[in-house]
Amino acid sequence: MKTSKTINIAAIADRVRSGDRAALARAITLIESRRADHQVAARELVQLLLPHTGQAMRVGITGSPGVGKSTTIDALGHYLVETGHKVAVLAVDPTSARSGGSILGDKTRMARLSMADAAFIRPSPAAGTLGGVAAKTREAMLLCEAAGFDVVLVETVGIGQSETAVCDMTDFFLALMLPGGGDELQGIKKGLVELADMIAINKADGDYIKRANLTAAEYRGALHILTPRSTEWQVPVLTYSAMTGNGIPELWAKVVEHRGIVQRSGEFDKRRSEQQVRWMWTMLEDRWQSKLRADPAIRTKVRATETAVAAGRIAPSLAADQIASWLV
Amino acid sequence: MKTSKTINIAAIADRVRSGDRAALARAITLIESRRADHQVAARELVQLLLPHTGQAMRVGITGSPGVGKSTTIDALGHYLVETGHKVAVLAVDPTSARSGGSILGDKTRMARLSMADAAFIRPSPAAGTLGGVAAKTREAMLLCEAAGFDVVLVETVGIGQSETAVCDMTDFFLALMLPGGGDELQGIKKGLVELADMIAINKADGDYIKRANLTAAEYRGALHILTPRSTEWQVPVLTYSAMTGNGIPELWAKVVEHRGIVQRSGEFDKRRSEQQVRWMWTMLEDRWQSKLRADPAIRTKVRATETAVAAGRIAPSLAADQIASWLV
Repeated sequence: MKTSKTINIAAIADRVRSGDRAALARAITLIESRRADHQVAARELVQLLLPHTGQAMRVGITGSPGVGKSTTIDALGHYLVETGHKVAVLAVDPTSARSGGSILGDKTRMARLSMADAAFIRPSPAAGTLGGVAAKTREAMLLCEAAGFDVVLVETVGIGQSETAVCDMTDFFLALMLPGGGDELQGIKKGLVELADMIAINKADGDYIKRANLTAAEYRGALHILTPRSTEWQVPVLTYSAMTGNGIPELWAKVVEHRGIVQRSGEFDKRRSEQQVRWMWTMLEDRWQSKLRADPAIRTKVRATETAVAAGRIAPSLAADQIASWLV
Repeated sequence: MKTSKTINIAAIADRVRSGDRAALARAITLIESRRADHQVAARELVQLLLPHTGQAMRVGITGSPGVGKSTTIDALGHYLVETGHKVAVLAVDPTSARSGGSILGDKTRMARLSMADAAFIRPSPAAGTLGGVAAKTREAMLLCEAAGFDVVLVETVGIGQSETAVCDMTDFFLALMLPGGGDELQGIKKGLVELADMIAINKADGDYIKRANLTAAEYRGALHILTPRSTEWQVPVLTYSAMTGNGIPELWAKVVEHRGIVQRSGEFDKRRSEQQVRWMWTMLEDRWQSKLRADPAIRTKVRATETAVAAGRIAPSLAADQIASWLV
């Protein structure tokens, strides 16, 4: 086996496979590194661990700020650990470099889960394009699977492109919502309707239970008019409370039910295969996008070309030819 | 000005600008040609005509087979011609090469419009990937604008990716639906909800009027729960009859109203600019995709790599590296 000069890939792989959390954390750091030798080593590591990946339930979770994503993941993760699962929590947040923080950065927001031995929480890789951030989270997910985690929850900020990226690396995509405040029902973003495998309405506790149920009924009414993504899965709308934990087991039962259905129908394998191939093409695109950004002179020319195209001075086809010539 | 050896670009451009329909048709044929010298000439032509483009209302129209797309375009186009517009009808149908025909291929389905002097109907370019087909239709649209057509209707088959492509080259995206048949209401495809600027229900005539109105009310109910794409435009749901022409003027009035709103808010210019830039990147991607397909040996290797990635034998990142190395 080929190894890097200074990094013993095989030894790291063994330690990750043994479930060593410190080794897993360091391996993910290797993946996130921008150093060229680290990137080479990271790719070898992922390739080496690949046969030991793929067995987890991969669940994407989205929701607007304030919906209670962290407390939901804390409650759900706690329930899963209690019922014998090993849970990894990852995130895709390309804004984290700018905002200085990251979703999941503050482990105190996942008070119970961060204490559990059977849980592993990792904030979003901070740097880079959405494509880059998503790629690193994907590979972190593979490492978590190789380390024996059988549930991977991937949190995302409620921004269109991030949601698509997370949906594209998971088996089940869960959208969290809040009970509507009377007249002004909180809208579902259009893009989300296409992605969600389930909608769950948080804060169904105390005085809010009735309101949450009404909201759920309204969403159900709105959703039944839409053709489902899968012919065999009608997107359910549930209510739950991250605070009390009510509805969390039912929520997970739906994820398990979905898995059974799509596995029997063959959709599961198909979705995973397609995700892998799309991922490859996305990474290839990312490669030449990086190449264009790496050279400051080319970067300036690309920006000028974009401006001219946006203003309608150069036809896009001609501009594409120009940029292609700089890539050679 | 640079000209190709055998093609007098400037002369073609002049004839297109004068509104010569035969010249316009030949110019589009030049754009659709796969010959390298034709492609060079086509790019010069588009660049030369670029300053004279952009003034049309660009309207995308989608709907499932049987919804009456052709008769709707016939009725709408006829109404527009009657009210003084010059109307070009184009299409994006990447399946047309396979099916042997093309939407719009049969002009008899647009009986009145195909007879009108102020109308120009062109079937979908038949060959190539969706990206290629869409690129050619886009450039055909620019030529039509340069030829003085002030409304361009772009028809698409009701398939996800084609709809996205057409939405991305138009200012307004219209989804056609049928009245529901009692209990089993015809579903709106999820992806469509994200794209549509208006939903119009055809066949609101005779016995179907009541049913069409009921269907419209149901769609309105479902849509009001969704966050609109634009903060200033709530997606309207109308009924009309392509057969009798009832509702066609109201349908067009909505398109005009939308244009006014987004033009005043600045959204219109923003959407057009963003479309141009995205188009450039899409074409650049298309370039290296073509490069990968051009060499049979590389094509075989790419296919084998895709299979290995789909089966989980090679990590996508490693596969992307391999393919990138073949591109250099």
